[in-house]
Amino acid sequence: MVSKNQIKLITSLQHKKYRQEHQLFLAEGVKVIQELLLSNIVLEHLFVTEPLFEQVPDFQKTMLKEADMKRISALSSPSSCLAIFKIPQEVPVSNRGLIVALDDIRDPGNLGTIIRLCDWFGVTQLICSRETVDLYNPKVVQATMGSITRVQVNYLDLVDFVKQSELPVFGTFMDGANVYDEKLPAEAILVLGNEANGISHGLEKVITRRIAIPRFGEIQKTESLNVATATAIFLSEFRRN
Amino acid sequence: MVSKNQIKLITSLQHKKYRQEHQLFLAEGVKVIQELLLSNIVLEHLFVTEPLFEQVPDFQKTMLKEADMKRISALSSPSSCLAIFKIPQEVPVSNRGLIVALDDIRDPGNLGTIIRLCDWFGVTQLICSRETVDLYNPKVVQATMGSITRVQVNYLDLVDFVKQSELPVFGTFMDGANVYDEKLPAEAILVLGNEANGISHGLEKVITRRIAIPRFGEIQKTESLNVATATAIFLSEFRRN
Repeated sequence: MVSKNQIKLITSLQHKKYRQEHQLFLAEGVKVIQELLLSNIVLEHLFVTEPLFEQVPDFQKTMLKEADMKRISALSSPSSCLAIFKIPQEVPVSNRGLIVALDDIRDPGNLGTIIRLCDWFGVTQLICSRETVDLYNPKVVQATMGSITRVQVNYLDLVDFVKQSELPVFGTFMDGANVYDEKLPAEAILVLGNEANGISHGLEKVITRRIAIPRFGEIQKTESLNVATATAIFLSEFRRN
Repeated sequence: MVSKNQIKLITSLQHKKYRQEHQLFLAEGVKVIQELLLSNIVLEHLFVTEPLFEQVPDFQKTMLKEADMKRISALSSPSSCLAIFKIPQEVPVSNRGLIVALDDIRDPGNLGTIIRLCDWFGVTQLICSRETVDLYNPKVVQATMGSITRVQVNYLDLVDFVKQSELPVFGTFMDGANVYDEKLPAEAILVLGNEANGISHGLEKVITRRIAIPRFGEIQKTESLNVATATAIFLSEFRRN
């Protein structure tokens, strides 16, 4: 059984305001919950519709009927499990290696995909402008497929961060230099901009190198690449050497 | 005003069965409709909530109130326009250049993103297994952002196609050779597999070269890249030389 208060809490955690108030977030699906349980992130409570996650003690686990899972799940096809985790304390940002910086990414699927890409390409530090979609948005958590446990994400003032950092700063612009011809260093900040407006003017001023993925084909009408697919190509270029 | 019959027709076009029966498909949003109107694809009817697309004659255009647009739109935030287009006749598949082959891609967003990537990288021919999600699924049309007008898509038996083709066939596998070390030709077939199961066994047998994007980082637990982001990196590798 799931109590009225639990339903109220779970529903409220769809919203950033209540996630911050309670310092809790939601995860759905076996794969994501499995990875979170293996990490340092602390479980608050787990709901399952079938025997799963035997390592979780009974007092932290509630067995539900599928109809009840439907009531608490945000998914159109609910999975067999939903969990509430504690939001971990923010760790101070590191200022080394390859750092990805997101300037106002709004789509949860894009942020989740970019976190998964960072994980694949061994980028452990992602920094986001304060306007970027919340890391603990359930759609972001879902889209990371567990990579959320392996990439450190900080929300901060990107202009301030870039100014104090000694790393070279690469920004992606339609009119940038061909990325295939660039000598890309192992340590750098790679800035990706908002889905519609690109990199903001304030941040543009502190970028040291403008780069772009060249278009191919004769017609050349494609307006732009999606920010997550562009990130895939830029990270591949940084790492391939 | 939108008639009951129009609502019925538009709603039915969310489903492949009725798209095939009527040989019609839906598009929503200014950008996508604009690109479709500029292409050879024939408009059946356009619905707008504000004065848009002056080039479209009155008999093909209906002005709607926003409340009516909400009734016919599949989007949670309807745009200012929705159009019905005729499905164009399938053009025979070409057997030259770089061809992307999709083996049972199920997610409409992934197919749409891959079409947009093909357009960017000058790949004009995409071939799909018959189990791949329908090109005229409204979510696919939406995700292509207009690139649907510039990439030719054919649904066919991939094994038969590959067998008759003389092009080298690259398949993407977790255990494939490092793509960064490959000499990639200008003319080839690049096969991407299903989101969960990869490339099917029948097709695997006719692949001449297995390639992969190497993982980076120390922990290396990321299970796989999303098929659309993997396609981005493979197409970038094929074109960068």
